[in-house]
Amino acid sequence: MEKKEVLVLKDILGTNKKIAAEIREILQTKGILAINLMSSPGSGKTTLLESLAERFQGRFRMAVIEGDIETERDAERIRAKGIPAWQITTGGACHLEAKMVGKILAEVPADLDFLFIENVGNLVCPASYDLGESLRFVLLSSPEGDDKPKKYPAAFLSSQVLVLTKSDLIPHLPFDIGRARKEALEINPHFEIFEISALTGQGMDALEAFLVFALERLRSGYA
Amino acid sequence: MEKKEVLVLKDILGTNKKIAAEIREILQTKGILAINLMSSPGSGKTTLLESLAERFQGRFRMAVIEGDIETERDAERIRAKGIPAWQITTGGACHLEAKMVGKILAEVPADLDFLFIENVGNLVCPASYDLGESLRFVLLSSPEGDDKPKKYPAAFLSSQVLVLTKSDLIPHLPFDIGRARKEALEINPHFEIFEISALTGQGMDALEAFLVFALERLRSGYA
Repeated sequence: MEKKEVLVLKDILGTNKKIAAEIREILQTKGILAINLMSSPGSGKTTLLESLAERFQGRFRMAVIEGDIETERDAERIRAKGIPAWQITTGGACHLEAKMVGKILAEVPADLDFLFIENVGNLVCPASYDLGESLRFVLLSSPEGDDKPKKYPAAFLSSQVLVLTKSDLIPHLPFDIGRARKEALEINPHFEIFEISALTGQGMDALEAFLVFALERLRSGYA
Repeated sequence: MEKKEVLVLKDILGTNKKIAAEIREILQTKGILAINLMSSPGSGKTTLLESLAERFQGRFRMAVIEGDIETERDAERIRAKGIPAWQITTGGACHLEAKMVGKILAEVPADLDFLFIENVGNLVCPASYDLGESLRFVLLSSPEGDDKPKKYPAAFLSSQVLVLTKSDLIPHLPFDIGRARKEALEINPHFEIFEISALTGQGMDALEAFLVFALERLRSGYA
């Protein structure tokens, strides 16, 4: 990058970091667990949220901030499950920034348990932007291939949880789940890893239990 | 975006456009058809190139410039097919730029037929950067979902060819190929659309014939 580009980027990231820290403070004080979901387009972020909406019904309160380049589609899918959802359309920008989340914060109900922030479908840019989340999830779907962690290291390095999605497709694919796990753990040895199929429900019990545990941990002050 | 960001971006894009125009002029004068391949991570760009390498063997000369955030893996896969390949690792940047391609140009054999430029796996950023190609392909794999064209319109608007990949997986997916085609054509009515599976070979004859036609068209001066 040119020197001018680097300076502007530093500026943006510095400001973003400050806003993100404020958001995190506000949400954690309210006992809301905020989760930033990152992945390539079509890895199953919205489908995972639809599945969680059904599972949490009557037990936990969730809301979703949807980030997309264009369209209100993902927010509509979430609202169809009876879940509050706000759509941010970036109009071209390849990631969400903390200030976009900050603008919505006043509308977020104070008695929420989980606030999911679905980032723009992109395995590169979102990794550089803290949104004030307490946890960052990266999703990798089996059709994308087992070689992706080392090709897109920042997304895997900056997340605490790896969700391997679309496990139902593995029998039809040249996908070695052992290799995907191994590469991910080489980048990030502390990864919590889940293998799921939101369509068949496989692995969803474990992921749900982890979310409930993470919420309890936040509320007991050990986040 | 902030005003400062917009100004820097305009600057970069202006410079990029000039370099791209020079690259295009040089390659077209030599009768080399340059194709910029864009898609999400894991949509099948490298697998498509491996398949073309096998098909073109002994008939057409191709070379590949590989763009990735990290690793030399894709270039190694291409070289294993006996095809010259140069790896550009952007070290974090989410797209290739014309100047990166320009640096390699002197090494590209003059008697080439096809020069493929495989962009960084990203359905957003690469759309803004002309690399001096004669044709731009966007790939969309069936597992990514039929709703992607309108969610990532720039990639579809700026390409001339849409390759729907991994058609062999469609029976296992909630993927409506009619919807994917319809959305893509609403954004870009002039799309050439191909449905392929590089693994089974389905649809590859038509795509290969189109590439040969496009090469002939370039050399006859009607590009």
